[in-house]
Amino acid sequence: MVQWLRHRALTRKVLYKRIPVVGWLSNYSTRSAVADLLAGVTVGLTVIPQAIAYASVAGLPPQYGLYSSFVGCFVYAMLGSCKDSPIGPTAIMAILTRENLHNLGPEGAVLLAFITGSIQLIMGILQLGFLIDFISGPVSVGFTSAAAIIIATTQVKDLLGLTYSASSFIDVWDQLALHISETRLWDAILGFTCMTILLILRKVKDIPVGPDDSKEKTVFQKILSQVLWFVSTARNILVVVICAVMAYMFHQHGSIPFVLSGHVKEGLPHIHLPPFQINTGTRNYSFLDLCSSFGSAIVILPLLSILEDISLGKVFSDGRSIDATQEMMALGVCNVASSFFGSMPVSGALSRGAVNHASGVQTTLGGIYTGLIVIVSLQFFTPYFYYIPKASLAAVIIAAVVFMVEFHVVKPIWRTNKMDLIPAAATFISCLLIRLELGIVIGIGTNVLFLLYASARPSVHVEKHTTDWGCEYLMITPDRSLVFPSVEYVRHLVSKAGVKQGSSCIPVVIDSRHVQGADFTAAKGVKLLIEDFVKRDQPLLFYNLKPSVVEVFQGVQPVSFQHCSTETQLYSMLRGNLSIQLTNFLILCQRFGQN
Amino acid sequence: MVQWLRHRALTRKVLYKRIPVVGWLSNYSTRSAVADLLAGVTVGLTVIPQAIAYASVAGLPPQYGLYSSFVGCFVYAMLGSCKDSPIGPTAIMAILTRENLHNLGPEGAVLLAFITGSIQLIMGILQLGFLIDFISGPVSVGFTSAAAIIIATTQVKDLLGLTYSASSFIDVWDQLALHISETRLWDAILGFTCMTILLILRKVKDIPVGPDDSKEKTVFQKILSQVLWFVSTARNILVVVICAVMAYMFHQHGSIPFVLSGHVKEGLPHIHLPPFQINTGTRNYSFLDLCSSFGSAIVILPLLSILEDISLGKVFSDGRSIDATQEMMALGVCNVASSFFGSMPVSGALSRGAVNHASGVQTTLGGIYTGLIVIVSLQFFTPYFYYIPKASLAAVIIAAVVFMVEFHVVKPIWRTNKMDLIPAAATFISCLLIRLELGIVIGIGTNVLFLLYASARPSVHVEKHTTDWGCEYLMITPDRSLVFPSVEYVRHLVSKAGVKQGSSCIPVVIDSRHVQGADFTAAKGVKLLIEDFVKRDQPLLFYNLKPSVVEVFQGVQPVSFQHCSTETQLYSMLRGNLSIQLTNFLILCQRFGQN
Repeated sequence: MVQWLRHRALTRKVLYKRIPVVGWLSNYSTRSAVADLLAGVTVGLTVIPQAIAYASVAGLPPQYGLYSSFVGCFVYAMLGSCKDSPIGPTAIMAILTRENLHNLGPEGAVLLAFITGSIQLIMGILQLGFLIDFISGPVSVGFTSAAAIIIATTQVKDLLGLTYSASSFIDVWDQLALHISETRLWDAILGFTCMTILLILRKVKDIPVGPDDSKEKTVFQKILSQVLWFVSTARNILVVVICAVMAYMFHQHGSIPFVLSGHVKEGLPHIHLPPFQINTGTRNYSFLDLCSSFGSAIVILPLLSILEDISLGKVFSDGRSIDATQEMMALGVCNVASSFFGSMPVSGALSRGAVNHASGVQTTLGGIYTGLIVIVSLQFFTPYFYYIPKASLAAVIIAAVVFMVEFHVVKPIWRTNKMDLIPAAATFISCLLIRLELGIVIGIGTNVLFLLYASARPSVHVEKHTTDWGCEYLMITPDRSLVFPSVEYVRHLVSKAGVKQGSSCIPVVIDSRHVQGADFTAAKGVKLLIEDFVKRDQPLLFYNLKPSVVEVFQGVQPVSFQHCSTETQLYSMLRGNLSIQLTNFLILCQRFGQN
Repeated sequence: MVQWLRHRALTRKVLYKRIPVVGWLSNYSTRSAVADLLAGVTVGLTVIPQAIAYASVAGLPPQYGLYSSFVGCFVYAMLGSCKDSPIGPTAIMAILTRENLHNLGPEGAVLLAFITGSIQLIMGILQLGFLIDFISGPVSVGFTSAAAIIIATTQVKDLLGLTYSASSFIDVWDQLALHISETRLWDAILGFTCMTILLILRKVKDIPVGPDDSKEKTVFQKILSQVLWFVSTARNILVVVICAVMAYMFHQHGSIPFVLSGHVKEGLPHIHLPPFQINTGTRNYSFLDLCSSFGSAIVILPLLSILEDISLGKVFSDGRSIDATQEMMALGVCNVASSFFGSMPVSGALSRGAVNHASGVQTTLGGIYTGLIVIVSLQFFTPYFYYIPKASLAAVIIAAVVFMVEFHVVKPIWRTNKMDLIPAAATFISCLLIRLELGIVIGIGTNVLFLLYASARPSVHVEKHTTDWGCEYLMITPDRSLVFPSVEYVRHLVSKAGVKQGSSCIPVVIDSRHVQGADFTAAKGVKLLIEDFVKRDQPLLFYNLKPSVVEVFQGVQPVSFQHCSTETQLYSMLRGNLSIQLTNFLILCQRFGQN
């Protein structure tokens, strides 16, 4: 019975952890519900223009952005552990999708979402959350900055009303230089105007209205500051709606000065399995073909999707740490479920997360309202999306991603650890010049090399000490664990330091306080070291060895192995060794006497 | 003048280091010269059968083994730093050459030697000796054992007189099973007899002759033990010569019961540039084609050649540490120079190193006599090599490599660090089932993952302490440096430990004695940690921080950063914090009073 109860308690604990909504739903208050409703609607109004724009970043028809924006919200409301995270299309996921589509079209993007989700689920189940930790701050900064620049670059053509196709970053600039003379005047004017308005509106919420203390504000001042906040927060949809209305009116009068988004497919997507075979017309791709053409994206997309979501979570977590495993599984289910509704890969978007947080969201249930708004817009408003000028969407994207370029981080990195600029620069440059996924792999690789070099070349501190009674000895302190890449180096240093003292053969004490572990190669190295010292008849003592490391060293059965853990023991051993040395010296004297 | 003298002294030091022979040649005694002569000749007698056999392992005509056996000896006599190392063809180099030839024939092997040497030289100049340290003991054991088994496998067909072609390990066994019924009786009998004799002769030198003390032995006993030693050491050439004589006599009588080595090209090789273009008849390979078909072998061969040489050096170094950079450069020049004489990649062979050492070699000059013997044999004895039965060579190889399979190492690894069995097994299995070079890369990769996991998940020790005056605090000690993969984890643990203490908000002290360094990501993590503690109004102290780490943490400008390095400071800060907390508590009380 007790067993059964305990079992039940455990099950409940796992349930609360894995389906968080179960844990708090019974305590869900009306106040929270209202807050969630308001926040959800605000995010919904933000996501619509973003979704259409990100679809264009990903090189997909606009409806696919909207298809990606509702299922994830519903699923995450149940499984998510971070209330501010609004699941849907993001700039990074969109550009990664674009880079890996290889002309497979929307079907490829949907399959990519399914694969991304499956890999995330597997990672979650295998508890591979620690993989994320290998994407360091500098690498992440380099990647995000490069991605932002690439995204902005892809949008320049829409901003100027140009039409050309180009894939890589350098290509785009090449093509731009070729086509710049074809710039359409009214698109360019609209685009730059929108961008300026968006950047100004972004700051509008910070305008102080009346006195600082909200208690002293008049009703008018309170309403005004609320309005400013709303205009600032919903600036994307406002700008896009106004532009669309303008374009509609021009259209009614028979003139079309702007390039428009064009037909957006009406209604909700049909539910069907993701396409495991794709026929592009020129070639029939099997599932394996598709996987091999996605290549490293199969691992990079899931990882970056999680990274984006978790870094968003960290920004708004107020110090609570995030359950990476739970987020992996939640995102995995979001992506898999979304892919049945024609979605591209999704994640938590930082820009909408900020809106969500500022709107005072209380629980993940806010996402349900966001999802409903997207569904409503798909059902009823798609005909009007026809009139959205492409330049206004380009302005929305550029005005958003411009803040992802983090050149200001260079200074703190310089102040803390200049070496960290190398992985940052390596990531940034190779993301720009090669490919995004390859760039981040190169960045992580560079950074890991630093780690490996540090573990291969520990710093070893050598000091000459003298005991009270005048016995000199060398104290050698390696600063980290002895592992296979470092042991030969440490052995070399210890031997050299020992031999340097010449014929006196003074005792060498290895202070192992920082040696937290050792492996077989290290044990073998230590065995060789001990043998050398025995041959030279020079005493070698290990001091402050952890018991687990003593066991490791004894495993290779060295000829002699003297270790101690207290200063008293050390001194008494040094005394003992001295007397042994003295004995040896006397024996030597005797021999010389005999000859 | 002083400057010039100092400069000259420095130049001389570098010269002695880089061309070791210059340093000791002036002190070269007649006694050393005699010792070197004897050892050199003994090694020469060993290398001839081995060279012919290893050429067959590499899939090359027999003369290429001999071409590989003399230039290296001469060069190494000048540049080598390890007196026991006999440069020439080795089992490992031969099997790696076979695996990477891709039907390019002897020309490919010669080019491979040139590339191997060039890469070794570059590695030496760039001081990349530390790369070798990343091949751990277990990986090396796994690789050598697998290589030995693969080598033995390739020889089974010659041992049984079969003819078939097969490349991979599994292929060979498949083919063997198919062709086993074609076994030639006399070849098999000869092969197994030779193998048995070789294994027995190997032990013959350990037979005790007369009394233990050499002073008490009679002249006959002394001669007998010398003869036994010689027979044992030169067993390979003895067995091969006897077999060849037998085959010759059979041949004179018109019967050929054994498969013979066949024609060996007479005379010394012509000196010419390594072939930078190869025409195989079916295809014309440019230098880049060749490099891309060699693939990872371009890095693996140089590394393993150095590894083989250095591990040999370590065995006989008597505790002197080996200058890896010098060995890299020496081996590099050996390989490059050899490649002008039609050599395959060379290294220092452990088996001949043992012969060299046991023969009492004094300096690297011993190699000159070895080289001369090989030259003489090429010039005068090649016609007789025709009669060497292939089965006897196969027996020589198998009897040698059988001792490279190191299953006995499993036990000490188990005793020291059981986890090290994983990279060992991964290397062994993937070397056998995939390819040797890929196997060692997989092994190193697995092993490096262990390192990375250790740096991502340090162990963090949490303890509750109480000061004299009754102030409780948490002492948290992470066991290694804070770097990007570990900082989130440590932050999570510290936060959890801090929060667990509930409302009491007791001070947390992070004992950073083992934190030897930190990077930007770590600094940012610490900043977040400090902010969390400030929000919770919980004191956080860093204790025993290294000044360099303090600088790193201060680079990100945390809101507050309290650190101290002595116990007295710690206690006074704890007192200070307590009083601050008390003040906060009093202010809180006042507020409650007001409401």
